[in-house]
Amino acid sequence: MLLTEPLLENYVQLPNAVAAGSKRVALADNLAVGGTTVSKGVMGEAVRYAHEHQVSIELVIAPRGGVSPYNDVEIKMMEADLLEAQQLGVDGVILGALTDQQQVDTEALTPLIAAAGGMSLTFSTAFDQIRPQDRGTAIDWLANQGFDRIWSAGNSTDRLADWTASKRLADSVGLTLVPTDVTVAEVAKISQQLDVHLIAGPAVIDL
Amino acid sequence: MLLTEPLLENYVQLPNAVAAGSKRVALADNLAVGGTTVSKGVMGEAVRYAHEHQVSIELVIAPRGGVSPYNDVEIKMMEADLLEAQQLGVDGVILGALTDQQQVDTEALTPLIAAAGGMSLTFSTAFDQIRPQDRGTAIDWLANQGFDRIWSAGNSTDRLADWTASKRLADSVGLTLVPTDVTVAEVAKISQQLDVHLIAGPAVIDL
Repeated sequence: MLLTEPLLENYVQLPNAVAAGSKRVALADNLAVGGTTVSKGVMGEAVRYAHEHQVSIELVIAPRGGVSPYNDVEIKMMEADLLEAQQLGVDGVILGALTDQQQVDTEALTPLIAAAGGMSLTFSTAFDQIRPQDRGTAIDWLANQGFDRIWSAGNSTDRLADWTASKRLADSVGLTLVPTDVTVAEVAKISQQLDVHLIAGPAVIDL
Repeated sequence: MLLTEPLLENYVQLPNAVAAGSKRVALADNLAVGGTTVSKGVMGEAVRYAHEHQVSIELVIAPRGGVSPYNDVEIKMMEADLLEAQQLGVDGVILGALTDQQQVDTEALTPLIAAAGGMSLTFSTAFDQIRPQDRGTAIDWLANQGFDRIWSAGNSTDRLADWTASKRLADSVGLTLVPTDVTVAEVAKISQQLDVHLIAGPAVIDL
């Protein structure tokens, strides 16, 4: 069965998404900059609402827009937010960290992975900035560290080819590649062409 | 002495603002929608940094963009964020709540004022949406409830006249009217013309 996971800004659209039949939602603030972590208050009420309606909820964990390397203070913020999410019963988190050289920032991610214990782990669309020739190594490391999924908007010149190549790598280590930035109109076709069963992003359902 | 209070998005510009000599800063996420509450992680590290540098820190408390009435769930989110801010030692909070009729939403604000105990209280630029003829009543109520300041961007056709009128009302009950959305170039002139000593907003200092 095909599952679409809308990425919502704050709590506002959550009741609508649930009413529209979403079984899984992702939540962030400030989608204009790619998504940031919601406040504690929003987090708590969103989890409560989602779970009361048997809906899984994932949170974007990012202290600001942009995916350039996070400094030590920013890692601490993300750790605090991950621990808060864990305490509130969030089902999964979406995050990414790259070095200046657009490699997976393993040093930054290691404490974050530890702090996320118990929640599912999705690597964010920061993945799209990793060079194709480095993605195999990246995906191996992410799989070894317990990541479950990778979000990818695909390379804009040929998204399908880009997704197909990444999906082959991901499949080989049991990771799920999740196409994102897909519109409602594209969902069925992309799901079929790529043989994927989960598609995410701000526009996957009409709200 | 004239004090400028930059409104910063997340933590990113805080060290720069402090280095530039700011003695007081305001923090929000998602300024594109008027400002939302930052995550717990951002809040904690920002307070720590500000206080280590003898800088006062205020937080925007808003569960989403827009100032239309907040529902009960949103009030709960704001309460949770206020309690968190209080626990972390935040100096003040900036918030606003209006009814559908653009009156101060006293029902919504009452629990929030209680939750903000110990922090200074600033009514947000939601104030600008209150009709001029209703502002006297609004200001009286806010002063009675312990608000300290009101942020106002002023009416765009004649900001100075608008600020002057509101300031007269505010002064009479010991509230401080704080002009906002003022650029660096305008700060000195507006301060002099209005005789105000605090000016706030995203553009009051060069970062």
